[in-house]
Amino acid sequence: MRNPNKPKFNEGDELSPWRESLNTIIFGAETWPAKLFDVVLIICILISVLSVMLGSVESLNVKYSVVFLYIEWFFTALFTVEYFLRLISVRRPLMYCRSFFGIVDFLSIIPTYLSFLIPGVKYMLVIRVMRLLRIFRILKLSEYLSESHVLLEALNKSRHKILVFLYTVCTLVVLFGSLMYVVEGSASGFTSIPKGVYWAIVTLTTVGYGDIAPQTPWGQLIAAMIMIMGYGIIAVPTGIYSAELIKVNKPDINNDACPDCGSTGHDFDASFCKFCGHELDEE
Amino acid sequence: MRNPNKPKFNEGDELSPWRESLNTIIFGAETWPAKLFDVVLIICILISVLSVMLGSVESLNVKYSVVFLYIEWFFTALFTVEYFLRLISVRRPLMYCRSFFGIVDFLSIIPTYLSFLIPGVKYMLVIRVMRLLRIFRILKLSEYLSESHVLLEALNKSRHKILVFLYTVCTLVVLFGSLMYVVEGSASGFTSIPKGVYWAIVTLTTVGYGDIAPQTPWGQLIAAMIMIMGYGIIAVPTGIYSAELIKVNKPDINNDACPDCGSTGHDFDASFCKFCGHELDEE
Amino acid sequence: MRNPNKPKFNEGDELSPWRESLNTIIFGAETWPAKLFDVVLIICILISVLSVMLGSVESLNVKYSVVFLYIEWFFTALFTVEYFLRLISVRRPLMYCRSFFGIVDFLSIIPTYLSFLIPGVKYMLVIRVMRLLRIFRILKLSEYLSESHVLLEALNKSRHKILVFLYTVCTLVVLFGSLMYVVEGSASGFTSIPKGVYWAIVTLTTVGYGDIAPQTPWGQLIAAMIMIMGYGIIAVPTGIYSAELIKVNKPDINNDACPDCGSTGHDFDASFCKFCGHELDEE
Amino acid sequence: MRNPNKPKFNEGDELSPWRESLNTIIFGAETWPAKLFDVVLIICILISVLSVMLGSVESLNVKYSVVFLYIEWFFTALFTVEYFLRLISVRRPLMYCRSFFGIVDFLSIIPTYLSFLIPGVKYMLVIRVMRLLRIFRILKLSEYLSESHVLLEALNKSRHKILVFLYTVCTLVVLFGSLMYVVEGSASGFTSIPKGVYWAIVTLTTVGYGDIAPQTPWGQLIAAMIMIMGYGIIAVPTGIYSAELIKVNKPDINNDACPDCGSTGHDFDASFCKFCGHELDEE
Repeated sequence: MRNPNKPKFNEGDELSPWRESLNTIIFGAETWPAKLFDVVLIICILISVLSVMLGSVESLNVKYSVVFLYIEWFFTALFTVEYFLRLISVRRPLMYCRSFFGIVDFLSIIPTYLSFLIPGVKYMLVIRVMRLLRIFRILKLSEYLSESHVLLEALNKSRHKILVFLYTVCTLVVLFGSLMYVVEGSASGFTSIPKGVYWAIVTLTTVGYGDIAPQTPWGQLIAAMIMIMGYGIIAVPTGIYSAELIKVNKPDINNDACPDCGSTGHDFDASFCKFCGHELDEE
Repeated sequence: MRNPNKPKFNEGDELSPWRESLNTIIFGAETWPAKLFDVVLIICILISVLSVMLGSVESLNVKYSVVFLYIEWFFTALFTVEYFLRLISVRRPLMYCRSFFGIVDFLSIIPTYLSFLIPGVKYMLVIRVMRLLRIFRILKLSEYLSESHVLLEALNKSRHKILVFLYTVCTLVVLFGSLMYVVEGSASGFTSIPKGVYWAIVTLTTVGYGDIAPQTPWGQLIAAMIMIMGYGIIAVPTGIYSAELIKVNKPDINNDACPDCGSTGHDFDASFCKFCGHELDEE
Repeated sequence: MRNPNKPKFNEGDELSPWRESLNTIIFGAETWPAKLFDVVLIICILISVLSVMLGSVESLNVKYSVVFLYIEWFFTALFTVEYFLRLISVRRPLMYCRSFFGIVDFLSIIPTYLSFLIPGVKYMLVIRVMRLLRIFRILKLSEYLSESHVLLEALNKSRHKILVFLYTVCTLVVLFGSLMYVVEGSASGFTSIPKGVYWAIVTLTTVGYGDIAPQTPWGQLIAAMIMIMGYGIIAVPTGIYSAELIKVNKPDINNDACPDCGSTGHDFDASFCKFCGHELDEE
Repeated sequence: MRNPNKPKFNEGDELSPWRESLNTIIFGAETWPAKLFDVVLIICILISVLSVMLGSVESLNVKYSVVFLYIEWFFTALFTVEYFLRLISVRRPLMYCRSFFGIVDFLSIIPTYLSFLIPGVKYMLVIRVMRLLRIFRILKLSEYLSESHVLLEALNKSRHKILVFLYTVCTLVVLFGSLMYVVEGSASGFTSIPKGVYWAIVTLTTVGYGDIAPQTPWGQLIAAMIMIMGYGIIAVPTGIYSAELIKVNKPDINNDACPDCGSTGHDFDASFCKFCGHELDEE
């Protein structure tokens, strides 16, 4: 009964037959019941998220408030059942609970129950949108996973540079925000330093709402400097990430192993193993 | 009579002489009548699109409504005739109808006729602007085609990464939009979750209209986070596309090995191996 | 008398001694009088441009209108004299007149004279700011020239791709602008298709003034799509230019010539000339 | 007594034992008292900056003005003592005073004392945020330093290109700003050329406040051109910085040649020549 293809689970985790097949349906992605389950799940998630979003629209809520309530409770019940099925069918329930998806699945049902205590919390049901991440399972899983792996690896490798960059941005924003508070004053909407810092972020990131805007010539001069700075600084994260992605992305790594020492990572133009000097096989 | 240089059409598609020469004029780009036809066509398209655009300006439409009507019908008649000439002169009319250009050509004439039934639809005539794509035929065709091919190939190769990126953006936007709806409430313009999501998109993409803007300190704090996130996230598509374009763009690697020492990585203009000096094979 | 170091001028262009030394001062950049001339010129340009700019400020113009008039005429007279000195001292006056700098120098003095006929034209004196390009002569000339050469070469090489990109942007903007005109109507500020196209450009480029903003849910949905598109599309010119700059920028070109055939452009790892197969000198 | 591990200080700079240990605590980062000192310092900086920022909020200042005053004086006193301790414990006080951190440390205490003379100056205390740069000492110092070194080196190497770019941006902005002043006039908010230039910067950098926006068709046409230009021009600094970062970033090229065949381009981890299989020299 035990599936020999899943060696990562040790003997004690053996599931009874029906839990095993439930596991295949819920957590698997290859058999057709598993695929059907995923498609139905994704449709349910989409409908429930859409219903929460539309339920917040005043005009719709007045007319169809009962409908939205029914939909909300229907999907919450459904996802609660699903959550318990996952708990039952998984080999290590505790590990699932603490995994990223376990937490998301839990947070996707809890706001409805909490909404008895705290009214606004039910809108947090939109967190269900994160469950859609499972959509990549129905698409060709491995391809997308490796792609997002590349994106994350590049992000991970450039995290130090990004932190240095973020610190620089924060410092600039605090300094310029305070300067603008002193220069412009409350008349132009710079009523406090935090407001000035908020304005500096709005400006440096080139968002530019225009709810607060400098009115005095000196303020506009400083603003112009921040804008050009922000326009140029955007080159920094882009440059960091591009450079890292190009390195990670590199296609010219030869996957053939050395026939002598088994080492890999040889260049395509290598005729001899760079570690042991043995001749590499000609393709 | 049959042109032996067009082997892609099979025997049954043989055209009569005048249809053959019509084909050369309408679909070709090398002979001078073909070039003249293209130039006249492009001028007609530009005038007709401009006329549709200006016809929507209230002040102009009041004065010259008859002129605009005449121009509209004149060009629609002209393009209708052209469409039928294309149908007649092409070897496989059905294939043309279903091709990208066939659909665009059809959509470029149909709104005028439909405007009897649905009033606003006539403005859809601006789709004629897509017919201008033919402009690249008069310019040095092959060069532009290969350039846009490179751009599209890079886009195609990075489509998985871009989908992962788009999913991430959508998720962030839904989560932050809902959060802002709860935090800010209707007073600041966040009247519903869809409105909050719209605001989050406006902010994350650094567009920043300012029609909806956070008023409370907590809302501004979240907004500041979204802005810095959006400012940084723009590095991701740029990095993806740059990295892919650099890979696609790289034409200067010769895969031929030196016949003497087997080394590769020679430039395309190399006649001798750069490592051992042996003559490389002529291609 | 004739300077043998300037072989690009043919015999007939020989200048008299004083014109020769004037040439050295005005067009040269090595001798100290030439450097002094450049510095004085740049200061004059800066003052005159600043004066034109400040002269347009209502409050200042009311008070100091006479001062601004004197300054304007003083610098115009000065630059007119300078222009004639350039004409006299240059070997080929006609070629100078038609050169980029010759045209800029001419346009820098003509608005003052034209302002008798057309009032607003005097503000075009700010074109003098382009004369500041000469600033790079005082700084280490060659370095900056080669840097801007790299930037321009990359721009030139990617011009086909950029044209394809611009055409795509124009098409998108016309299509979406018309769509929004139909969807939103005059109530939200979309009073005509050109206005809609203007709004689409403001949105796609992530500028986002907010003077026109969609009000209906469908309009906001389309707007959201344009924004995300614009946020992603920015990757295209950046990718194009980065890729081209990396190619142009490439530092790994060996400047050593082959001792046998004199060819250059060998890789750093080349031991043999790739054109004639001769051994390259070891460094 | 003299620490032999710090050979950069000459004999005359020998410190007395307690100053030596003070030096280790204040300027060092390896021992646990040094680490504790850094952590406490960073917390103090954060609290003091936060207090200055919140102290500028009207509603809070009215209620807690005395508290903010106490906090301000407490931290100023603390940082003053710290400044003198640094002066005492450092080997070359004058060099410290003129160093980047010495100036920042001084500017971090002086505004409180100056606020007796000039009221607004006390908000300049936020410059203390720059002292947080020391935060990178507690984190793995060397890693972050080398990362920021890479970022700065790339910035330094591309400074000529960036200057050329900035000059181009300034020229464009002055020309377009003046043009808009002439085209739009005061009615749309373009009251002077400096205002027009400010608007051009706001537009070109894609910030787009919307406080000043073109109203006439011609003005909107010019604005559309500036926007598309700004949208494209952002590719230039990004391209420059990416290209430079990729060059600086590239650590994996070994310049050592194979002792047997003279080939280069080996990886750093290579022990044998990839072309001839000969053993490479150990470094």
